[in-house]
Amino acid sequence: MFGERLENPVDNPRIRAGVNATGATYELASDEKHRGLFTKISPFSGERINRFTLPPQSIEDLVMRVKINRILGGYVGTCHQRCTGLDCLSTLSIVTYDIDKKYGTHYYDRFIEFLKYMQANDLTGNASVTDVKGDRNLSPHEQVDKDMYLRVVEQTGEGIIVKGAKVHQTGSLSSHEIIVLPTRAMGKGDEDFALAFAIPSDTKRLIHVVGRNSMDTRELEGVDCGNIRYSKYCPTLIFDEVLVPWERVFMFREVEFTGEMVSRFSAFHRQSHGGCKSGKIDAMTGAALMMMDYNGTVKASHHKEKVIDMIHLAETLYGCSLAASYEGKQEPSGTYFIDPVLANASKIHEGREMAEAVRLLIDVTGGFVADLPSDRDFRNPEVGELLNKYLKGAIGVPVENRIKMLRLVEKMAMESADTISDIHGGGSPAAHRITIFRETDINYKKNCAKRLAGIHDK
Amino acid sequence: MFGERLENPVDNPRIRAGVNATGATYELASDEKHRGLFTKISPFSGERINRFTLPPQSIEDLVMRVKINRILGGYVGTCHQRCTGLDCLSTLSIVTYDIDKKYGTHYYDRFIEFLKYMQANDLTGNASVTDVKGDRNLSPHEQVDKDMYLRVVEQTGEGIIVKGAKVHQTGSLSSHEIIVLPTRAMGKGDEDFALAFAIPSDTKRLIHVVGRNSMDTRELEGVDCGNIRYSKYCPTLIFDEVLVPWERVFMFREVEFTGEMVSRFSAFHRQSHGGCKSGKIDAMTGAALMMMDYNGTVKASHHKEKVIDMIHLAETLYGCSLAASYEGKQEPSGTYFIDPVLANASKIHEGREMAEAVRLLIDVTGGFVADLPSDRDFRNPEVGELLNKYLKGAIGVPVENRIKMLRLVEKMAMESADTISDIHGGGSPAAHRITIFRETDINYKKNCAKRLAGIHDK
Amino acid sequence: MFGERLENPVDNPRIRAGVNATGATYELASDEKHRGLFTKISPFSGERINRFTLPPQSIEDLVMRVKINRILGGYVGTCHQRCTGLDCLSTLSIVTYDIDKKYGTHYYDRFIEFLKYMQANDLTGNASVTDVKGDRNLSPHEQVDKDMYLRVVEQTGEGIIVKGAKVHQTGSLSSHEIIVLPTRAMGKGDEDFALAFAIPSDTKRLIHVVGRNSMDTRELEGVDCGNIRYSKYCPTLIFDEVLVPWERVFMFREVEFTGEMVSRFSAFHRQSHGGCKSGKIDAMTGAALMMMDYNGTVKASHHKEKVIDMIHLAETLYGCSLAASYEGKQEPSGTYFIDPVLANASKIHEGREMAEAVRLLIDVTGGFVADLPSDRDFRNPEVGELLNKYLKGAIGVPVENRIKMLRLVEKMAMESADTISDIHGGGSPAAHRITIFRETDINYKKNCAKRLAGIHDK
Amino acid sequence: MFGERLENPVDNPRIRAGVNATGATYELASDEKHRGLFTKISPFSGERINRFTLPPQSIEDLVMRVKINRILGGYVGTCHQRCTGLDCLSTLSIVTYDIDKKYGTHYYDRFIEFLKYMQANDLTGNASVTDVKGDRNLSPHEQVDKDMYLRVVEQTGEGIIVKGAKVHQTGSLSSHEIIVLPTRAMGKGDEDFALAFAIPSDTKRLIHVVGRNSMDTRELEGVDCGNIRYSKYCPTLIFDEVLVPWERVFMFREVEFTGEMVSRFSAFHRQSHGGCKSGKIDAMTGAALMMMDYNGTVKASHHKEKVIDMIHLAETLYGCSLAASYEGKQEPSGTYFIDPVLANASKIHEGREMAEAVRLLIDVTGGFVADLPSDRDFRNPEVGELLNKYLKGAIGVPVENRIKMLRLVEKMAMESADTISDIHGGGSPAAHRITIFRETDINYKKNCAKRLAGIHDK
Repeated sequence: MFGERLENPVDNPRIRAGVNATGATYELASDEKHRGLFTKISPFSGERINRFTLPPQSIEDLVMRVKINRILGGYVGTCHQRCTGLDCLSTLSIVTYDIDKKYGTHYYDRFIEFLKYMQANDLTGNASVTDVKGDRNLSPHEQVDKDMYLRVVEQTGEGIIVKGAKVHQTGSLSSHEIIVLPTRAMGKGDEDFALAFAIPSDTKRLIHVVGRNSMDTRELEGVDCGNIRYSKYCPTLIFDEVLVPWERVFMFREVEFTGEMVSRFSAFHRQSHGGCKSGKIDAMTGAALMMMDYNGTVKASHHKEKVIDMIHLAETLYGCSLAASYEGKQEPSGTYFIDPVLANASKIHEGREMAEAVRLLIDVTGGFVADLPSDRDFRNPEVGELLNKYLKGAIGVPVENRIKMLRLVEKMAMESADTISDIHGGGSPAAHRITIFRETDINYKKNCAKRLAGIHDK
Repeated sequence: MFGERLENPVDNPRIRAGVNATGATYELASDEKHRGLFTKISPFSGERINRFTLPPQSIEDLVMRVKINRILGGYVGTCHQRCTGLDCLSTLSIVTYDIDKKYGTHYYDRFIEFLKYMQANDLTGNASVTDVKGDRNLSPHEQVDKDMYLRVVEQTGEGIIVKGAKVHQTGSLSSHEIIVLPTRAMGKGDEDFALAFAIPSDTKRLIHVVGRNSMDTRELEGVDCGNIRYSKYCPTLIFDEVLVPWERVFMFREVEFTGEMVSRFSAFHRQSHGGCKSGKIDAMTGAALMMMDYNGTVKASHHKEKVIDMIHLAETLYGCSLAASYEGKQEPSGTYFIDPVLANASKIHEGREMAEAVRLLIDVTGGFVADLPSDRDFRNPEVGELLNKYLKGAIGVPVENRIKMLRLVEKMAMESADTISDIHGGGSPAAHRITIFRETDINYKKNCAKRLAGIHDK
Repeated sequence: MFGERLENPVDNPRIRAGVNATGATYELASDEKHRGLFTKISPFSGERINRFTLPPQSIEDLVMRVKINRILGGYVGTCHQRCTGLDCLSTLSIVTYDIDKKYGTHYYDRFIEFLKYMQANDLTGNASVTDVKGDRNLSPHEQVDKDMYLRVVEQTGEGIIVKGAKVHQTGSLSSHEIIVLPTRAMGKGDEDFALAFAIPSDTKRLIHVVGRNSMDTRELEGVDCGNIRYSKYCPTLIFDEVLVPWERVFMFREVEFTGEMVSRFSAFHRQSHGGCKSGKIDAMTGAALMMMDYNGTVKASHHKEKVIDMIHLAETLYGCSLAASYEGKQEPSGTYFIDPVLANASKIHEGREMAEAVRLLIDVTGGFVADLPSDRDFRNPEVGELLNKYLKGAIGVPVENRIKMLRLVEKMAMESADTISDIHGGGSPAAHRITIFRETDINYKKNCAKRLAGIHDK
Repeated sequence: MFGERLENPVDNPRIRAGVNATGATYELASDEKHRGLFTKISPFSGERINRFTLPPQSIEDLVMRVKINRILGGYVGTCHQRCTGLDCLSTLSIVTYDIDKKYGTHYYDRFIEFLKYMQANDLTGNASVTDVKGDRNLSPHEQVDKDMYLRVVEQTGEGIIVKGAKVHQTGSLSSHEIIVLPTRAMGKGDEDFALAFAIPSDTKRLIHVVGRNSMDTRELEGVDCGNIRYSKYCPTLIFDEVLVPWERVFMFREVEFTGEMVSRFSAFHRQSHGGCKSGKIDAMTGAALMMMDYNGTVKASHHKEKVIDMIHLAETLYGCSLAASYEGKQEPSGTYFIDPVLANASKIHEGREMAEAVRLLIDVTGGFVADLPSDRDFRNPEVGELLNKYLKGAIGVPVENRIKMLRLVEKMAMESADTISDIHGGGSPAAHRITIFRETDINYKKNCAKRLAGIHDK
């Protein structure tokens, strides 16, 4: 981070804020009010487990994915960073079974062992999917530098040695395990890149480079954080010839299953967003409403309309994601899979309209999102009192509260690590659109039109 | 219609096209493939009935509302006109019970008798809700002319005499029964207007004035219809002192229940739209895809993007409406009610984006939506052959098919009776927005924001 | 029309309503208040002429194009149908000169003779541009049926014989002259299709097939017209081996100028739309405001916001179109040409947002856009009085006025001949986008970014 | 800044980056290529001056406002911070004259002296307009704390003593003069708040509190700046009983002119945005195009469509702003004023669609906008080489260039000081909408509709 090695990442305030966000998934699971929603008896172990370690075994499990993500989104006001691990577990619980069925391999059993370990210890997994990709016009094996997609460089009796890099690794240091899946559908020639496996996040020769985001020095400085507890960070992960033991390898060179792997994961992950982002909008909407209270603009009808637009967007994400769960189906392995069209329908809205929700929040809040004086200025003996005098809002509102809420709005609106994921999380917007088209029954629609027009094909 | 009395409405080709659309709800219920979806054993009679006569008794019933409406939307490519009756029955099955509980009246029993009659004879009901309203600034009893909202003008031993007018009565002549609900929440002084009842559509002194829509002469002329079987018409209904027998009166002067009546009905009806309109978009999307085939523009990536936008809209309406069903709850009477926020979220999209779907369809189709020569021109000995020569599209496509599909697009895009309901059906867009705000837990959202900002109210 | 030959088109009420719209360009030119704007001394003849016969000779002339079109749009509330002729004259006045300069031909002189004739007799021209195109994947000479693009089939001493068909010929029967330009850029092999010429609209073997639009029977029936004077119609024009005398041929086989011809015309025509459509929105906005008065909804803030959106759209089209004029440049022939990027920027808004303006108008107006009873019903002895009673709106507003305004809204919102041109007039939306990209200085923008990022190419 | 006093602001790297942006207005004015555009002979002094000190004396001057702002926007890729001063000078040159005419005061002469001083020394002015406002429901004199709007607290022979605070003071430390105008229309009772004047930015008891923006520590740290030269900062300005000499007072207690003052200034400033923001989009578009080159996604048609959308937005802002200039009119003082409807039409687009331009830029660029490793990481001996290996893009592109461009995108997309001004600069979006409605001729539009509907008022 910032060119220096962190000896103890969890004590770094910036990483700590990320760990806190993931911590909320543990906190609510042990909180009396939420325990019923967040935990369940595992059919694998018979023990009560956190739902973030449970591949969905029923429609209800699919529905709970959305509901607990929404609650968490409102609770942490940013990304809680634990959904990606569940999306990997869910994907692997389907695809390893399918591979075994075709090839007589034993990935599924290996995976179930790993899953029991995750459940027993209530561990957090991190989805390691997005490769650096090099030149986008070339497939993995066509790249000049073969390491542009993570690949196996050696096999030993112990396991495989892998090399490459995965980017946008949200919360990788807050996770116990890094779960690797392929980033795209691959074809003949790409066998070395067709890999899935899991390794501990502190594995040797695995390097986490914590990149920058727009407000990353705030936690470090301990001032002007906005969100007083939680934040998000996204390292680049370099696998500098890392050993993966065989019992942790869940796919090895079966290229024709890479497509299924990535499409299952993407669908699950795009749907997870529908939950947590609607929850984040809940917090954003609350902030907009509070700012109306604090600024004295409660009666402005145009502000109320903007709040309604925000609510509407949250419900759209939530509605489509929920429907994707309710319309899910059981796969051969027993795991349930969501309806991918509805899941992607939700994500298309997120990619387009979260920016709109941010814009509305800024509009309602006012110009201080751009340039609010620092907490340090408020504590300055020379100007602090003056600032407290001049930054008053509606009568009866403590200035301090108004300042805190303004700062929270700045965080939710302008912090890049979280807002960029509205657009690029779970794959690019173009990918969501292609998916929705591919998964739709085009002929049914054509036949509707032909029948109504009275056209009979010979 | 057009200033003249129709002696036999069902033989009038324009009315007939509307009757056909409603007929599809009977046809699919007796069709082997769809029967399972469209019918169910009635808990009231023990007989197999059409779902359009069944107030939902379970989450599954709520879900089926959306699914059968979507199928019908794709099947008739316009409004099938039977959902409004079901929305009335569902509403009355909840609210009559609630009134009885408060006042010890017996509306519910009366209603159940009526319901059994509807089910036994598989009848179609028409929702008679929207009053003419006069000056919008005045409540019912403040109007200069008291008849601006339907009201009771006399009570007799036999029943009540009502006077007033209801507008936008989609399919009133295709319905067996007219079911009247109040159009808005009312207050003290409005008792005479707080009415709910049902009467046969051919009741004496009940006048159906069939108004104009943009393409209304096509069915009459029997050419250039576009949709070869189905259409929609919406009369204005005048109750010129009509007698309603007591056994058909389901609400009488209980003003404080008018709000519940209208909000239940609206929520149900807005959700119905989520089903049928997503089905209509299926047919529109099919038409867009067929036009790409027929014009030879299949490879134009911008056209494909427009089709994806159309699919996305359909799934958005469908997803939100489905979720509204799955998240429904049981009311005291036993009937299930949908989640009103999600139902209204769907309708807000419809009101804003069906116009966009139409625009996209026109864009993909091309300029002939505006000015395609008439079928009669194609049959003209002088120019018919020339038109057939010049209106060829992609190689191998019969000209006749291209012409038929163009005509269908014109119908779906430019016919006013159906497209205007995207905006005004189920209440105006402003009403959907108010509802979504009113039904949302504002304080929960505020508290999310305050907690994150570290604000503690004293 | 409707399969029958019209012996006297101008006496046909439907055609007459179109002629009236074009007539407005004459009426305002002789009206004292507007004469200054609509007429100018011709530099070619020294006589005062109507601006619709004047290729722009100055920036002021370019500006006046937009201003008089806006006035006309508000005056006729639909398309006045005379701009296309001017757009052709303007294009030919540039390109014939450019061809002559390269090839030593004499098209420009021929054209100027034709122009003087148009000016001297104050004639209306019709742009005959859009070919039927057959299979869109094939260029003109690749088509199986060579007549899919208008082409020369024979040359004689007298002139050329042309064959083919042009579609969407707005107001062809209201025009004196049909001015033909190529519909697309052509290449080697397409020489026979590279044609420009003018012929009288009643030329022998030239067939006008008047197609259908959504409300086309209203004028014929003489009721429920909405717009009491004006309308629009768009025939398909078949050139069934038509002779064009040499003195009327302005381009003949110079394929490399087809691109310039079509791009000049398109830019001019797309800009014309910026004027007339902002004028049409003026009338639509007025109708929305009147409906608020008549319905008693003046105080609804959400309606006012919708009106503001409508005004904003009108000013956007107007602003971009005006700027395109002010930023115009003189071409070698002396004619001024607009800035094509700004002209296309305006048209992109039109194609996307006129549908939105229509939606807003319908929203403000209310559901009667779908199903207002006919004028004949209001005159019916049985129900007329009842309708007059029940269709009252705000206190003090004559019912008749409310009905008339509702009918006008229906016409402006749902009549296809005019509204489809928002999308397809002047080429499809995709064409506007391609143009804006092609005409933009991409490298300038790249260099801005590289300099700011500190990137120096070697 | 950050709770500490800056002894030498211009040497602070954060402030320096802001000063550099303003410096560009001097640099281009002395650059041979741009001098003709950026300078002009002053009619007041006869000397060649920078246009940023010249109230517009002709339509050409109004047009140049937009053109030089667009060039600067592309040149600095952020706000250059000098337009607000010109907008104040332009406003005062109109309104001081109008006040004098009514009251026989001598503000105009005073102002002209000040103007000559600004021109002679080529000074930069800062618009000090937005008061802190306290409770938004209360007018200035109704506030509990009277200092919520800047006010006169004492008059002396030397001048007036003023007290209050102005917020969002873009570039106040880069300016020589602070020019104060009232923030809103005021009424009877608000006389003490009806003030306009100018004072040097380093006046005693005038305190600049430099607030925070989202990426404010980057310049301080000297790494990861993105934009290598330029940035923006916006202090809160506290007037802690500051003396303003009489010769610098340009309005004093004339409340009825406050409305004109603020509406003139707002219109000018909203139009300035149309210039500079279209220029910023030029740089953003360039960055998007470069990222396509660097990532190897040039052939992705959906990316090209997004670039077209960005160009379209730039041209929309530019077109409306230019048209506002060309349609300007001369005021009694001789200064030219723009068309306020067109200027506000441009700003409404900015407020809504700059967020969209940012979203598109992020979409095209990819996920590294969220989390790109720091320059320091690239220089780290341990991981630097690995990062250089793995962050390669398209073949032949130096990694360094790709990194620099990604960093620029992050800056332009996620830096709050500049992006928030898209929404709140020149007043809130609601204000733009109210203005456009107020300045529109509503009756003209109503009359268009009434004439077409055939309605004749008595």
